[in-house]
Amino acid sequence: MTTSEAESGAMRRALHLAATPGVPLGPNPRVGCVLLAADGTTVAEGFHRGAGSAHAEVDALASAGEAARGTTAVVTLEPCNHTGRTGPCSEALVAAGVRRVVFAQADPNPVARGGADRLREAGVEVVGGLLADEAGAVNRVWSFAMEHRRPFVTWKFATTLDGRSAAADGTSRWVSSRAARLDTHRLRGLCDTMLVGTNTVEVDDPELTVRDELDDPVPFQPLRAVMGLRELRSDRRVLNDRADTVRLRTREPREALEQLFAMDRQYVFLEGGPTLARAFLAAGLVDEVVAYVAPMLLGAGTSAVADLGITTIADARHLRVTDVHVLTGHDGEDTNVRLTMTPHPPTLSSRRH
Amino acid sequence: MTTSEAESGAMRRALHLAATPGVPLGPNPRVGCVLLAADGTTVAEGFHRGAGSAHAEVDALASAGEAARGTTAVVTLEPCNHTGRTGPCSEALVAAGVRRVVFAQADPNPVARGGADRLREAGVEVVGGLLADEAGAVNRVWSFAMEHRRPFVTWKFATTLDGRSAAADGTSRWVSSRAARLDTHRLRGLCDTMLVGTNTVEVDDPELTVRDELDDPVPFQPLRAVMGLRELRSDRRVLNDRADTVRLRTREPREALEQLFAMDRQYVFLEGGPTLARAFLAAGLVDEVVAYVAPMLLGAGTSAVADLGITTIADARHLRVTDVHVLTGHDGEDTNVRLTMTPHPPTLSSRRH
Repeated sequence: MTTSEAESGAMRRALHLAATPGVPLGPNPRVGCVLLAADGTTVAEGFHRGAGSAHAEVDALASAGEAARGTTAVVTLEPCNHTGRTGPCSEALVAAGVRRVVFAQADPNPVARGGADRLREAGVEVVGGLLADEAGAVNRVWSFAMEHRRPFVTWKFATTLDGRSAAADGTSRWVSSRAARLDTHRLRGLCDTMLVGTNTVEVDDPELTVRDELDDPVPFQPLRAVMGLRELRSDRRVLNDRADTVRLRTREPREALEQLFAMDRQYVFLEGGPTLARAFLAAGLVDEVVAYVAPMLLGAGTSAVADLGITTIADARHLRVTDVHVLTGHDGEDTNVRLTMTPHPPTLSSRRH
Repeated sequence: MTTSEAESGAMRRALHLAATPGVPLGPNPRVGCVLLAADGTTVAEGFHRGAGSAHAEVDALASAGEAARGTTAVVTLEPCNHTGRTGPCSEALVAAGVRRVVFAQADPNPVARGGADRLREAGVEVVGGLLADEAGAVNRVWSFAMEHRRPFVTWKFATTLDGRSAAADGTSRWVSSRAARLDTHRLRGLCDTMLVGTNTVEVDDPELTVRDELDDPVPFQPLRAVMGLRELRSDRRVLNDRADTVRLRTREPREALEQLFAMDRQYVFLEGGPTLARAFLAAGLVDEVVAYVAPMLLGAGTSAVADLGITTIADARHLRVTDVHVLTGHDGEDTNVRLTMTPHPPTLSSRRH
């Protein structure tokens, strides 16, 4: 079944609505919806404004009222078939008399999936897959978490040009420039959980909050998660009341992620030291690597990356670079370079020797 | 004294002529010259085509012939006052009856300098400094060498993201991608000398030639210089006949550079291992750092940078990033990042802790 040009245009508008900034989403995907009349004109629009509020389809139906009857609903995600905090959208669309539904991304959530079938059973025309990649990109992390039944993991580390995270005496303030530290806070603010091990808490005592350019905490703070079996001293900053904190009493990365997923967590920012990162790397549980490289030489000191048990170059762990960003230094600060990467297995051509 | 618009235009043209590609310069600067008639029209042009051939002024005078009389010579470098392989240009300009000389960069070479004074003594009007920065940029390395009485030194190294140049078993083929290796050959081709220590020759046995994309040697090969006291085995590739090789029987960076400068060398590409680089860094004799960063983790192995005796972060050696270039990987190759940097002392703001 094909879609019309009016529907493509409406889908672009729905994607734009889905990406409305400033919405505290929690565990929900970003969704936009446009209702089209038979002549291709827009009857109503809607988008999801975060957990507990109406889904995009219901939002649009509410604003359309009786005018929804006979329309085509163009929606960025397959309408849900699941009674959560709101009723299933497939039911609401049927009840409102919507004639046809065009959606972009199929629902990757096995709990909510089945909306398209339900609509078809009720006699509604359904077409899926229009601008599906664009819709998937809007909910990249959510889609990943739904599909893999665990949070997406970004491992962030800072390093000197020669692979050091601290000098021989343990001092490390600051390897990263101010611009790089601000950028880290911006990235923290995109995730819903910051994860460290008990060792980092005991040794570095980070607060693990997201702060703005003025060093003030932002209104929505990600969860702070501390994994490991060691008890924490009660004066640790991660235990203060600036944000919620959860203890994950395990040393197993997979178990920690399972616990977090059970708490509706979808995006983990791994901020711990080299040992924790190694455990996640070894378990194949790093989905993205963000490295801040400072143009600084130490020649000795703490390695930014732990011994991975690699002894020969053919076994090197290769990363695929997806973005390189230059953080220009001002006022005498270093210019840092941010590399964003995804792990990928070594290929034949990189093993050519 | 001021200059006319015609003279500025002529200087831009002379700079363009100076930068004519494909000229094997040897130790000479790139120079361009335009002769202007009183009405601002061009009488003749010239540029220097490399050691042994005419200087730019003489080239232009030759092509003007009798028409040179009464003209203004617009030249990118102060005319020389030195009888080398060719006579002094100041003399030639006076003899040809040139009325006025406008030059850009003052001659930084104490041996050749004095041309402006000589011209003035002979009654020629002389103005210097027009587009001097642009002219200096054309001969960046030559100007540096003339001023500092030693070659400019670029230290190049390749590193994994975690600061390793080889795995624990010594294997290092390839840390850099093919694109990065090609780029290195391009940079080698810009210098006049490649410098390594005897240790690199004994251990890695590099050929140290400049090759093109087809892995063929390019026509003009830089000098290969090996410094250190150790004898070399005669089968070492650096001793083959693909390029000239010189032995510098010293372990002292400054002495090695003095010897090279005495051989008219102006641009050293430091290709040795971490120990040699450390010696040059310690002596303050690294003028530019080029690092190829491969998105690869080893976790262990040979450090790309030797122990510099730095024990605390405040003493870290900071580099100023002047360029970041992404070498996109194709056919499964890694994307590498090239950072070009200059050393600079740590500033107060980077020592803020």
